[in-house]
Amino acid sequence: MISVSVLGASGYSGVELLKILYRHPGVKIDRLFANSSAGKTLAETAPVFAKISDAVLETYSVESIADSDLMFLALPSGEALSLVPDMIAAGKRVIDLGGDFRLQDTSLYERYYKRPHTANRELRKAVYGLPEWNRQQIQSASLLANPGCYPTSAILPLAPLLKEGLIEQKGIVINSLSGVSGAGRSSSVEMSFAEVNESVRAYKVGTHQHIPEIRSVLGNISGSPVSFSFVPHLMPITRGIYTSISAVPAQTLNEQSVLAAYEKYYAEAPFVRYSASAIPAMKNAAFTNFIDIGFRINQEDHQLLVFSVIDNLLKGAAGQAVQNMNLMFGFPETEGLL
Amino acid sequence: MISVSVLGASGYSGVELLKILYRHPGVKIDRLFANSSAGKTLAETAPVFAKISDAVLETYSVESIADSDLMFLALPSGEALSLVPDMIAAGKRVIDLGGDFRLQDTSLYERYYKRPHTANRELRKAVYGLPEWNRQQIQSASLLANPGCYPTSAILPLAPLLKEGLIEQKGIVINSLSGVSGAGRSSSVEMSFAEVNESVRAYKVGTHQHIPEIRSVLGNISGSPVSFSFVPHLMPITRGIYTSISAVPAQTLNEQSVLAAYEKYYAEAPFVRYSASAIPAMKNAAFTNFIDIGFRINQEDHQLLVFSVIDNLLKGAAGQAVQNMNLMFGFPETEGLL
Amino acid sequence: MISVSVLGASGYSGVELLKILYRHPGVKIDRLFANSSAGKTLAETAPVFAKISDAVLETYSVESIADSDLMFLALPSGEALSLVPDMIAAGKRVIDLGGDFRLQDTSLYERYYKRPHTANRELRKAVYGLPEWNRQQIQSASLLANPGCYPTSAILPLAPLLKEGLIEQKGIVINSLSGVSGAGRSSSVEMSFAEVNESVRAYKVGTHQHIPEIRSVLGNISGSPVSFSFVPHLMPITRGIYTSISAVPAQTLNEQSVLAAYEKYYAEAPFVRYSASAIPAMKNAAFTNFIDIGFRINQEDHQLLVFSVIDNLLKGAAGQAVQNMNLMFGFPETEGLL
Amino acid sequence: MISVSVLGASGYSGVELLKILYRHPGVKIDRLFANSSAGKTLAETAPVFAKISDAVLETYSVESIADSDLMFLALPSGEALSLVPDMIAAGKRVIDLGGDFRLQDTSLYERYYKRPHTANRELRKAVYGLPEWNRQQIQSASLLANPGCYPTSAILPLAPLLKEGLIEQKGIVINSLSGVSGAGRSSSVEMSFAEVNESVRAYKVGTHQHIPEIRSVLGNISGSPVSFSFVPHLMPITRGIYTSISAVPAQTLNEQSVLAAYEKYYAEAPFVRYSASAIPAMKNAAFTNFIDIGFRINQEDHQLLVFSVIDNLLKGAAGQAVQNMNLMFGFPETEGLL
Repeated sequence: MISVSVLGASGYSGVELLKILYRHPGVKIDRLFANSSAGKTLAETAPVFAKISDAVLETYSVESIADSDLMFLALPSGEALSLVPDMIAAGKRVIDLGGDFRLQDTSLYERYYKRPHTANRELRKAVYGLPEWNRQQIQSASLLANPGCYPTSAILPLAPLLKEGLIEQKGIVINSLSGVSGAGRSSSVEMSFAEVNESVRAYKVGTHQHIPEIRSVLGNISGSPVSFSFVPHLMPITRGIYTSISAVPAQTLNEQSVLAAYEKYYAEAPFVRYSASAIPAMKNAAFTNFIDIGFRINQEDHQLLVFSVIDNLLKGAAGQAVQNMNLMFGFPETEGLL
Repeated sequence: MISVSVLGASGYSGVELLKILYRHPGVKIDRLFANSSAGKTLAETAPVFAKISDAVLETYSVESIADSDLMFLALPSGEALSLVPDMIAAGKRVIDLGGDFRLQDTSLYERYYKRPHTANRELRKAVYGLPEWNRQQIQSASLLANPGCYPTSAILPLAPLLKEGLIEQKGIVINSLSGVSGAGRSSSVEMSFAEVNESVRAYKVGTHQHIPEIRSVLGNISGSPVSFSFVPHLMPITRGIYTSISAVPAQTLNEQSVLAAYEKYYAEAPFVRYSASAIPAMKNAAFTNFIDIGFRINQEDHQLLVFSVIDNLLKGAAGQAVQNMNLMFGFPETEGLL
Repeated sequence: MISVSVLGASGYSGVELLKILYRHPGVKIDRLFANSSAGKTLAETAPVFAKISDAVLETYSVESIADSDLMFLALPSGEALSLVPDMIAAGKRVIDLGGDFRLQDTSLYERYYKRPHTANRELRKAVYGLPEWNRQQIQSASLLANPGCYPTSAILPLAPLLKEGLIEQKGIVINSLSGVSGAGRSSSVEMSFAEVNESVRAYKVGTHQHIPEIRSVLGNISGSPVSFSFVPHLMPITRGIYTSISAVPAQTLNEQSVLAAYEKYYAEAPFVRYSASAIPAMKNAAFTNFIDIGFRINQEDHQLLVFSVIDNLLKGAAGQAVQNMNLMFGFPETEGLL
Repeated sequence: MISVSVLGASGYSGVELLKILYRHPGVKIDRLFANSSAGKTLAETAPVFAKISDAVLETYSVESIADSDLMFLALPSGEALSLVPDMIAAGKRVIDLGGDFRLQDTSLYERYYKRPHTANRELRKAVYGLPEWNRQQIQSASLLANPGCYPTSAILPLAPLLKEGLIEQKGIVINSLSGVSGAGRSSSVEMSFAEVNESVRAYKVGTHQHIPEIRSVLGNISGSPVSFSFVPHLMPITRGIYTSISAVPAQTLNEQSVLAAYEKYYAEAPFVRYSASAIPAMKNAAFTNFIDIGFRINQEDHQLLVFSVIDNLLKGAAGQAVQNMNLMFGFPETEGLL
């Protein structure tokens, strides 16, 4: 039994995280922090927890974490920079669901996140928490950078193809369709129901902060630079990311060769489901920690089309965070997640 | 050809109003005002007007309205109070889509709108713009109070039944389901897509500002006080109001007696559709200026169930405003609206 | 550890039931039946179970149930009539999620379900499975009639008020708003996305088969006949029922007297949440087995307004079925459901 | 004033067509045909027309078209094959909204539409009705093949780029997101609300019947073969197509060079809106006959990203059909469409 605390307990990722943690047999929830709602109960800010939890939200301070083995940070990007050093110094292990410790290159961080990186020492120790590619390092991580939702949806289907040399490193096109919960609890006109409903639009084309994350992780896995366009779209659904990828085959492909690549890397991965026949549908992965992968080979036009779906709040955030926690603390990888 | 100006040209009602006015053969649009977007083009704030209008939004001032025969006010409630007196003094006719001139009893205004009424003189001249019940007064109105969306959906089906004594004045239950555009362009968390989607909730039970409007108009029409509960619900759709009413029969009812009441008052009303067989569906009235009315008699439990649907932005706001304009300026009542 | 089989494993209720049962620590799933999909795997018809279950769907026959302690029937109404007698004769306990064993008056069954009831002997032994009102009988039931979704949403908030004499037995108005999954997996034009989306409509007014269920259960609980109108509406959401009720106070009410009634009957009910302050919102009960209840007293117009929300597939179907199973087999009432 | 008849008056395209035609000042509607609903009024099958039209739907026969100058066919693909020859022989002009006369290569028709083409003589005279590229031929067409919705959304943004040599003929990736109305009035489980809502999925990858239409039209315009992948996705919205395209620059591009290509071909096109700054959003083109085009240049990865949106029922079907009618009969191109 480990003791965990959560910062950002009132946001969408924080709420999903707590739903899992309250059911997890190996976890005792220590303290919940949400500065803007401090003093309220969790059930007041998230009524789904009425009769499940009577926890009270607190304002975070360094002193308050004495009993926790693990700190979850479900905060807007940027806020972890000033918090993590003290936590690490206090001997706590940390899982950060934000973007502050995913990019080892701080110049990229500054370019895409529009602020300087002020925790370089901790950054160098941070482990990127994609369990399917990084299991061993995750087990011993003290600071875990939980992957972004779009990167999870793009890296998992692409990595085996690149690693096996099935596709070219250039000419990749990644189109992602995301539900709105990915943007967090929002009070902007752009995210209001009347603007989002019955519409769809691409956004942050060429400027999204997940671009350097996809680029660096795929580059690391494949061993050479990867070139792609990434186009995120906002969809009128609450949860889920659908990613449609086009890549240029580096050799003649058939169903077996593509399947073999996935089999090689994901045969033992409990949350990766792939198929040569089915094209994924978002509703089958929503509310689960799975990623579903499908593909089609367009021989005539020399393109490989790959599709993936995840729940952005689970495999794309809170679910993957618990998967990482399970690995870090020796629980079964799927504990609390099936 | 009349010349009209619009204040609040960038809100949802303002945009719907302009869609109609740009097609109206008897209208020349003079000036468009939207203080928060002044200096921008209409097409910048509402891209649906690209290639249709090159109008520029302005900051309103009294001097700017010299050439307009009619002023449309599509503003948040409260803002018209300080604007209307000068307009009337300048000899302009005014159609106010907000709630400031609908309640003759200023104590009710203060109770439900939470501010004092500061334009009593103009209020006394204001005409309530429900064309099906007020056609003659509307024709000569200088200040027209365009009805609220919920009141339109509730008054039109109830008024004939009360007037003909078919239902009791007491024991009425009005349940209304509204799309989110009724709340205007919103930047609140409560109206964000992630909160509204896949949910529904009653709100402002007993406190909604449309309660005294329904009460006073129905009382005026029927000649004695009317007692009811009104429960508005927020629905995950953009446009439309569905109102389900229960009333206690004051006599033995059958389909013919109910139909006869509607026939008596609405046979010539171009935008009222009623039926003894069909239960209305929102999609048939959305994007139109019609109200659809249906009903069922529950003899066993002694209740009459009545249903109505409108598009809250059209028959519930901009469409009815143009219908009123047509009557005020001698255009055919349906001009621009079919 | 008990062994259970499910008939109708490919429908929406069946799928939700299996999601719960696969996680339930006291249950071993024996066999899954779905005649129209027999021979396929569960994961083929419901891809959400890929990598979770490799069960194969079978055609049902009496011989196939030898090892099961409990049979779940998640079938269209009518189909259970010919199946239950053999199951009972074989000594199996049965939970029927359909409507065939909820009405003790077979003339009402024939009137509303449009077919004769052909299992009268079993019907007489059937226990209505509303745990909050029937806990003891449920524990020893051999044939359990799981309540309908609308009745669950209406009976739970009304029963304490009637039982305590807080409201009149007459003049009740029940407006319910339902997501589409309540209609089951459908291939009708009326339930197609293009017809349902951005619309809402009342349906089956006065003819819905849940009317006699609400009437008889409320009559039994309160000890005298209850009179009401029930108006179901179809909403453009997938899951959930929002029920807005109006009733006539039988005495002067205040918040405390209403709360006391709920407290009296539901203080120990693990899945009933009630509040004098909060008006329920559907999203807080969706994907849970809770019912959320709120209310407002309209003193001026002499009406009590009560609101409830449930997930129609959980507290309104599969969740309540497992809650009943827990009671029947001595598991903790909340096992698998929190 | 011309006289027109419509076959398929009860489908989604037929209904949208009639909404426009009833408002069109130059059109008299002659007869409406809908075999499956013959004998009913239009308002019975499409209640939106109550109080607007009292037309009765008829079963089509050759004799019934004597007075019509123009026949609109809004039928499922395949049905026009046996109808068009008689119409042409009777001297009628025809606009076919289906896919039967868009592909001059009948082997492609047979491969993608899964039936032989049985009206070759008429096919050879058919004119492809994309007004922005074919205005002159359209004016004199007797048989007009109205373009498909996806092809309209893909060809209009791509054609100027190919024609001007700004992009390579190879390596194009077309991702389209469509609302469900494109599939017509459907009674399949796949198109039911519960399946479509809160989901998204790619479908018919590599097999969609619009692939050869896009290929042949772009090939004709650019003068050499074009190679691309086309991936259609089904979205939980009713109307609209969002198309995101990636192409390989054939030269160094900047905003001005791309804009210049659009300016060259579309400066005078009344329904094409393009911009170097704004990324299109579906809601701005929905319920209009416009196509909105935007783009971004990814210099680093050597890709040009182009975006377009249309209303699939208007610019993608009924609106474009009226635009073509306007050209064929000498009306202003925008008549009835703004």
